[in-house]
Amino acid sequence: MVEPATDTIAATRLVPLLKDELDIVIPTIRNLDFLEMWRPFFEPYHLIIVQDGDPSKVIKVPEGFDYELYNRNDINRILGPKASCISFKDSACRCFGYMVSKKKYIFTIDDDCFVAKDPSGKAINALEQHIKNILSPSTPFFFNTLYDPYRDGADFVRGYPFSLREGAPTAVSHGLWLNIPDYDAPTQLVKPLERNTRYVDAVLTIPKGTLFPMCGMNLCFDRDLIGPAMYFGLMGDGQPIGRYDDMWAGWCTKVICDHLGLGVKTGLPYIYHSKASNPFVNLKKEYKGIFWQEEIIPFFQAATLSKDCTSVQKCYIELSKQVKEKLGKVDPYFDKLADAMVTWIEAWDELNPSGASAKDSNGKA
Amino acid sequence: MVEPATDTIAATRLVPLLKDELDIVIPTIRNLDFLEMWRPFFEPYHLIIVQDGDPSKVIKVPEGFDYELYNRNDINRILGPKASCISFKDSACRCFGYMVSKKKYIFTIDDDCFVAKDPSGKAINALEQHIKNILSPSTPFFFNTLYDPYRDGADFVRGYPFSLREGAPTAVSHGLWLNIPDYDAPTQLVKPLERNTRYVDAVLTIPKGTLFPMCGMNLCFDRDLIGPAMYFGLMGDGQPIGRYDDMWAGWCTKVICDHLGLGVKTGLPYIYHSKASNPFVNLKKEYKGIFWQEEIIPFFQAATLSKDCTSVQKCYIELSKQVKEKLGKVDPYFDKLADAMVTWIEAWDELNPSGASAKDSNGKA
Repeated sequence: MVEPATDTIAATRLVPLLKDELDIVIPTIRNLDFLEMWRPFFEPYHLIIVQDGDPSKVIKVPEGFDYELYNRNDINRILGPKASCISFKDSACRCFGYMVSKKKYIFTIDDDCFVAKDPSGKAINALEQHIKNILSPSTPFFFNTLYDPYRDGADFVRGYPFSLREGAPTAVSHGLWLNIPDYDAPTQLVKPLERNTRYVDAVLTIPKGTLFPMCGMNLCFDRDLIGPAMYFGLMGDGQPIGRYDDMWAGWCTKVICDHLGLGVKTGLPYIYHSKASNPFVNLKKEYKGIFWQEEIIPFFQAATLSKDCTSVQKCYIELSKQVKEKLGKVDPYFDKLADAMVTWIEAWDELNPSGASAKDSNGKA
Repeated sequence: MVEPATDTIAATRLVPLLKDELDIVIPTIRNLDFLEMWRPFFEPYHLIIVQDGDPSKVIKVPEGFDYELYNRNDINRILGPKASCISFKDSACRCFGYMVSKKKYIFTIDDDCFVAKDPSGKAINALEQHIKNILSPSTPFFFNTLYDPYRDGADFVRGYPFSLREGAPTAVSHGLWLNIPDYDAPTQLVKPLERNTRYVDAVLTIPKGTLFPMCGMNLCFDRDLIGPAMYFGLMGDGQPIGRYDDMWAGWCTKVICDHLGLGVKTGLPYIYHSKASNPFVNLKKEYKGIFWQEEIIPFFQAATLSKDCTSVQKCYIELSKQVKEKLGKVDPYFDKLADAMVTWIEAWDELNPSGASAKDSNGKA
């Protein structure tokens, strides 16, 4: 339907994009000096800071940023007994920020990530690229060899079915990292000096049916479309595993996106990842995951959801049952995790009553 | 097993790579002046030129190239009645060159493709990059977000299962095009001035279960692993369709690679595609394909092959039966095509007795 313009002033306010519809979620244990470098890009947006570790520590946030900050005491107060589903002493705690946000979009970034440069030397506005990714459709049902067909100067190639050219709504935009690549501890140990210097000027959709290792360092998603699946699991304090929080969220998210016909993009934007974490510490956190992922990944590759699963919450609860049934045999940890998945959804719905489980993804009750 | 070196001279002969194991197949109707630009890269290799159209026309090949040339009379003489499976007046005839080759690898390129430059201005040796792609494994079973993990400076990211890091043998390397993108006629008509200027410095594996539009303009494959599936169908003279030859080969090839656990890579290398073909002529050739692909692609997406299909030939024959049964309803053309698929395999086995159908892909009779 074509209608005349009614608000010409609004058109001049388009930059910064989605200013009032996006929160930036940052998990941290330290002062947020890294925000200085991001100031031109992040200052217009609202920040949700999730303070991990000792709640008595004061986290300094550079002046001029609009933020709310939650420490462990806040999480316990807000969620009560359900706070058990939020990890402690692990950046997995960031998912609490997703839950308390009231915005449609979330961008989350680690506090050791700086602004990268493109090959021409220009500073990359990572957030702007994520927004471009997420506001344009994905192509999960057929592969386009010239990558994202919705980018300027690109299109669908010969042989791409016309019926699929509308694409699917994009639920997730997964960004990458220059300098320190996101390697596991064994690879870090074997290649301590490897740096990622290759700038790949591409955004692409991860095809339906294909899983990927989702990194939480530089990630944007549509909270309305997929938020309840972005649970970062039980990691860190009191848990047998760490550094699999984002992986867990990625596996669950991808299975649910595939089921609901939503798209996941990866590629641009890059951030500059400044410091490799300690590979010995990482190995201790990861080693069970390194075993377990050999069984977890085939489990998710084979997972199917029933037709009744018409909302993210329904999908997630269904998945938690399958986790309990199939992965519970691998280790009792997965029993606990399956329960935490249910608690997470309960807490999500409590804090987000308008989008609660009863509602289908098409907005109908 | 570690053994001492026995031939130190051989080590100095590694460049040019695979010199005696790769044929370059070029379909053409004109003098091959374009080879001048490729001389430094192609001259060490053997060329198979498949002359399309009037066999009495003399095709000039620049001096210094080692080649064999086949025109329609040769094809008819060599294949007899089976020559009916080789298209006439369409570049689909190139697949005859795959059949008569005695080498392990094939690189095929169109005669309107020139040497592209990388962003630093350096001429790209497309063949060398294809060889790198095809000699390193693929990763069809799980997506690696840093693209090809076997390239210098890259690896598998955190969360990539260790059991899958050996990868799968690479059967196909699909290269891309700068300047004129490979668009269908409708897109050409709508965007006559669009040029591909984006150099994406990536090679990636197309995941298992995902189809893609394979372009025959700049393509390399392992003839031993997948050759018999690289049939370019019935196009051109006497056929209701054109410009779907490579697409057809791509769909069949991908389904068979997925079944046999082989990998398909796409991305680098780029060639410079000099001239857009006439969109009006293309539309005439394509328009039935534009309808049909809406049914063909779901057919291939759903196609499964039985466990008995242990060689490419067996897979291809099985696929031809499914084409006849399922696509025959779409148009009688597919009945004819299914028969031609069988003829193609018979002709392939006749010319390649040592790798004939009876042999499994593991080399056992």
